[in-house]
Amino acid sequence: MELDFVEWLSERLPASPHVAIGVGDDAAVVRLGRPELVTTADLLLDGIHFLTSEHTPRRIGRKSLAVNLSDLAAMAAKPVGAVVSLALPRDGVGDLSTRELAAQLMEGMLPLAETFDCPIVGGDTNVTPGPLTIAITAFGEPTDRGVVRRDGAKPGDLLYVTGPLGGSLAGKHLDFTPRVAEALSLHERVDLHAMMDLSDGVSLDLARLCKASGVGAVIEAQSVPITEAASTMAATSGRTALDHALSDGEDFELLFAIDPRSEEDLTTCSDVCESLVRIGCLTEKPGVKLRWENGVTEVLQADGYQHR
Amino acid sequence: MELDFVEWLSERLPASPHVAIGVGDDAAVVRLGRPELVTTADLLLDGIHFLTSEHTPRRIGRKSLAVNLSDLAAMAAKPVGAVVSLALPRDGVGDLSTRELAAQLMEGMLPLAETFDCPIVGGDTNVTPGPLTIAITAFGEPTDRGVVRRDGAKPGDLLYVTGPLGGSLAGKHLDFTPRVAEALSLHERVDLHAMMDLSDGVSLDLARLCKASGVGAVIEAQSVPITEAASTMAATSGRTALDHALSDGEDFELLFAIDPRSEEDLTTCSDVCESLVRIGCLTEKPGVKLRWENGVTEVLQADGYQHR
Repeated sequence: MELDFVEWLSERLPASPHVAIGVGDDAAVVRLGRPELVTTADLLLDGIHFLTSEHTPRRIGRKSLAVNLSDLAAMAAKPVGAVVSLALPRDGVGDLSTRELAAQLMEGMLPLAETFDCPIVGGDTNVTPGPLTIAITAFGEPTDRGVVRRDGAKPGDLLYVTGPLGGSLAGKHLDFTPRVAEALSLHERVDLHAMMDLSDGVSLDLARLCKASGVGAVIEAQSVPITEAASTMAATSGRTALDHALSDGEDFELLFAIDPRSEEDLTTCSDVCESLVRIGCLTEKPGVKLRWENGVTEVLQADGYQHR
Repeated sequence: MELDFVEWLSERLPASPHVAIGVGDDAAVVRLGRPELVTTADLLLDGIHFLTSEHTPRRIGRKSLAVNLSDLAAMAAKPVGAVVSLALPRDGVGDLSTRELAAQLMEGMLPLAETFDCPIVGGDTNVTPGPLTIAITAFGEPTDRGVVRRDGAKPGDLLYVTGPLGGSLAGKHLDFTPRVAEALSLHERVDLHAMMDLSDGVSLDLARLCKASGVGAVIEAQSVPITEAASTMAATSGRTALDHALSDGEDFELLFAIDPRSEEDLTTCSDVCESLVRIGCLTEKPGVKLRWENGVTEVLQADGYQHR
């Protein structure tokens, strides 16, 4: 990183028991609770994951860290730190110089980093002739119960989500709360068989979970929780609110499969998980199906939103 | 990552004891020797760190991982893994589609990853309207002796480099060997007070080491080891070979300060470190000076090559 930016940033990074060596050396040193690192990387681009023409750098910075925290949540890992690499447009963005842009991006990340005890420990900055590009790698540690993968779901498992789906483009895709606390609470109290975060829409993401686990699934149409934003969009989009909920993407809620005997334990998580909804169950037969209230069942196309 | 690319990559990733969970889930899980993570991130851009018009994607991929390994070496950490995020130009590069480009970049990284026991455990890929951008985060573990920082140098320490300097642009900046083995050997057998890798030229990097350690330094001009490439460049560049050696940058050799009582132990590293050269010593008085063979001393400007 550029020296004066490193100094600016160093002054804004709170001390953390996770950080043995922070920004400023050739590498950082992060303390973990055990000799196991959970790690995830996301690269976000102007025009695809955010729009510098519409969104403030602080919101963009916040989102960039939040999507990584969401991936840690998906594994039921506890965040311990992150590194942030920025490719900053040569001429800045709007009225902002590259340096001001970098600062505001970090200012968007820092409160989230503090809330989730995920200190920024290093990174890199460069200037690009291309669009703003943000590459973050986040670090987490497993709890005593290990991580939760997406390949452990079994036929008969119950399928849940942590909150309403759809219409994320109206704003939630920038301002969502990564479900870290929910994941840790669930993992402690419930027999989670598989979990992932919903980034590309439940229809596509559930197909992935099913494929990884070697199972199928049935979603109950009337059970799918739908955001107000999805309902609003449906009024003009020519698509149903349910369709928005199933395939808009960037919900960043958790999708998880539990042992049915564990269902009553979910109530013990209600202090942390406010909006758990059962949307269906897993089946032996492969494929993802949608069952309507009248009993009619159809194949659910895995056509969630894929970033192009 | 795009699903079929993940599958392609998964088949090419050798099993490693470091990898508990590799590519394909929301996050990877890496096993460490102790509950401490050493981590470093570098973001490389077409036109700055490499040229897709001149360099093959395999060389570019190799370099991108190598610069991260060099940072781990600078801390005397043992590599354990890396995540790779790619922003691939929408129209590919030359005759290569984005997918072929991604594959060849990875094919450049994989042999290096295997040589240095640094498995690729995850990452992200996206398509960009901008230049090829490669963001890698590497992970390492400290040895029993901990890491070596850049702020521990003391007046009277002897200053060494692991090999000749300058002229890296002729090819070494792409094909260098990260000094991981050298760093581990030195750290085991010698009393290292401070270490860093030379990315921006010894004149600038030494100034950083001195500033971090609160010391100054004197470099003996006639002791600085100079590459053949630097001598060749000097024939036409209008600069001296020594000037190239002091300020070209991207040498990716290690610069380190040792306790003078430890100097004779350096011979025990000669099986691994073939080209150790003492270039000067550290002083109480701040500032970096260059001393000529005739005893004349001048201030060395910290004008190493900075990526712009």
